[in-house]
Amino acid sequence: MVIDCHGHYTTAPKELQVFRDAQIAGLKDSSIPAPDLVNVSDDQLRESVQPQLKFQSDRGTDVTIFSPRASAMAHHIGDARTSLDWSRQCNDLIHRVCELYPQNFVGVCQLPQTPSDPLANCISELERCVNSYGFIGCNLNPDPSGGKWTAPPLIDRYWYPFYEKLVELDVPAMVHVSASCNPNFHATGAHYINADTTAFMQFLTADLFKDFPTLRMIIPHGGGAVPYHWGRYRGLAQDMKRPLLADLIRHNVFFDTCVYHQAGVDLLLKIIPADNILFGSEMVGAVRGIDPESGHYYDDTKRYIDAAAISDRDRQKILEGNARWVYPRINDRIPMPTAEGTLR
Amino acid sequence: MVIDCHGHYTTAPKELQVFRDAQIAGLKDSSIPAPDLVNVSDDQLRESVQPQLKFQSDRGTDVTIFSPRASAMAHHIGDARTSLDWSRQCNDLIHRVCELYPQNFVGVCQLPQTPSDPLANCISELERCVNSYGFIGCNLNPDPSGGKWTAPPLIDRYWYPFYEKLVELDVPAMVHVSASCNPNFHATGAHYINADTTAFMQFLTADLFKDFPTLRMIIPHGGGAVPYHWGRYRGLAQDMKRPLLADLIRHNVFFDTCVYHQAGVDLLLKIIPADNILFGSEMVGAVRGIDPESGHYYDDTKRYIDAAAISDRDRQKILEGNARWVYPRINDRIPMPTAEGTLR
Repeated sequence: MVIDCHGHYTTAPKELQVFRDAQIAGLKDSSIPAPDLVNVSDDQLRESVQPQLKFQSDRGTDVTIFSPRASAMAHHIGDARTSLDWSRQCNDLIHRVCELYPQNFVGVCQLPQTPSDPLANCISELERCVNSYGFIGCNLNPDPSGGKWTAPPLIDRYWYPFYEKLVELDVPAMVHVSASCNPNFHATGAHYINADTTAFMQFLTADLFKDFPTLRMIIPHGGGAVPYHWGRYRGLAQDMKRPLLADLIRHNVFFDTCVYHQAGVDLLLKIIPADNILFGSEMVGAVRGIDPESGHYYDDTKRYIDAAAISDRDRQKILEGNARWVYPRINDRIPMPTAEGTLR
Repeated sequence: MVIDCHGHYTTAPKELQVFRDAQIAGLKDSSIPAPDLVNVSDDQLRESVQPQLKFQSDRGTDVTIFSPRASAMAHHIGDARTSLDWSRQCNDLIHRVCELYPQNFVGVCQLPQTPSDPLANCISELERCVNSYGFIGCNLNPDPSGGKWTAPPLIDRYWYPFYEKLVELDVPAMVHVSASCNPNFHATGAHYINADTTAFMQFLTADLFKDFPTLRMIIPHGGGAVPYHWGRYRGLAQDMKRPLLADLIRHNVFFDTCVYHQAGVDLLLKIIPADNILFGSEMVGAVRGIDPESGHYYDDTKRYIDAAAISDRDRQKILEGNARWVYPRINDRIPMPTAEGTLR
């Protein structure tokens, strides 16, 4: 079985964006009434995820850990109420898709973050999604300001109440920023990758995982720049008298495989321990074209894993076993087909 | 001959920092008099660069393209006057070192940037350093705010008057940020790498190099995350109907080899055209330790180039020829030992 840990609902029915547009219009003009809840039929939802289902089928993946469109989270827009209303609409649609296709999608929630706000709403929305909807994780935005980077770093105690809830519920967080409102940062080409690199370096400098030994963070997009600069990070950790990186990340930090060429994936697999890599594609996502050099979609990352010179055991961990370990609640929704599924 | 395009004067005599400390103290308390100019002897300067000379000798490199300590530029401190006074002191010391060891060091200047200020001071300081001191390039900070990223992107017309001067003088700029005053960004572990990635994506989205066909930019630290995510960038360029990346960077964008492990350097050399790679070490710089896995300094990057499976011709370009092409004024200071030095 192949579990894709990184899929976004980028193909939601247009009614979702109509809701959002009305919500944003209301922020500018208080005479505009609050939008109605998103009203879409099950048939519309089924129709909307046909691209994902086709990609799963074409590429030989089975289950997608599925979350709202990351670039649309836009936590910098409006206030705490705006973010909560918007997150609930997005998460409700994810839940409905997961109910319609319980073998194909398992939910991960958007969090109602707001710059400078405490995380109480995030805690309650996480509980709602995990306890009522059976979601298995969340996307945590380290920069809810959208490219101004005004929040405290992820190692700051500001985040600790939320981490306590993650640990209590035994669900991980993927560190994932949203749209950039800073013209310096292209969203998918700079802001996303920078955030991944930034988060890793924050984790390197502090004892967060001593405070939370079972907290698990997935750094998407192949860990940003980190595997390519692994020597720099090993050297910085050494200069700072920090633990060996392999020890530091062992039970707590994981990279997905959203790297869109063979040489990049080969580097990732060579440098990062197999236990710390989760298969992901980010589909339908950041890059939509076909690579003329390979003749295949850039984001068909399973091809790169299939072609890599790794052991069958490592391949099984990366494609399935590690996801079951990092997101243990998936095992309630997608039973293991074989005992090997537990390998890690 | 081996030319290291990326060396910083991180070992300057303490008198330089005394000047800076007094300057910063004066910003907080106007009763403190302006500091005296940095007064150091030639012997002090000679003594201070012994570590660089020893590394050159031990590692088999010949010439270092030498600039003030990047993390100390700190353009966010004080105003335009502060930045100008500080830059001149730093550049004057670089000039003196280059005069003392004309076979070992060639100068690149710090620019007196200030957030939100026009670039007139930068233009005049660049002219002073190139015309009076024989410097061959500069370090351009895309984020003079020090981690707040408030400046316009590098493709904005804000920067164009400065680019006109670069073209007129036929000198390149290395895109290099300084210290971070944003607690999210560790300077050498996140801010530097993020800036490299950010600058590349800015270049990808605009026609800057159509406006300035001879403008040359070096993106340090192996291009940030870019080679590792080359498939993502090729795919984004394709989705955005931009030129092929190899064409986009050909005469204008160059990556150094400041990547501190063999697998990372191997990826760089495999993915990026040899014409667009310049040997660099960042010494004495970001990472100072010895890698227990190799038994050698992390930043002894020449070892990785020596061990890489590339042709002799490509190796010669990377170690010398490309630097002579990108920084043509170096040829006036360091004559080519052989005709092969011009190969590119």
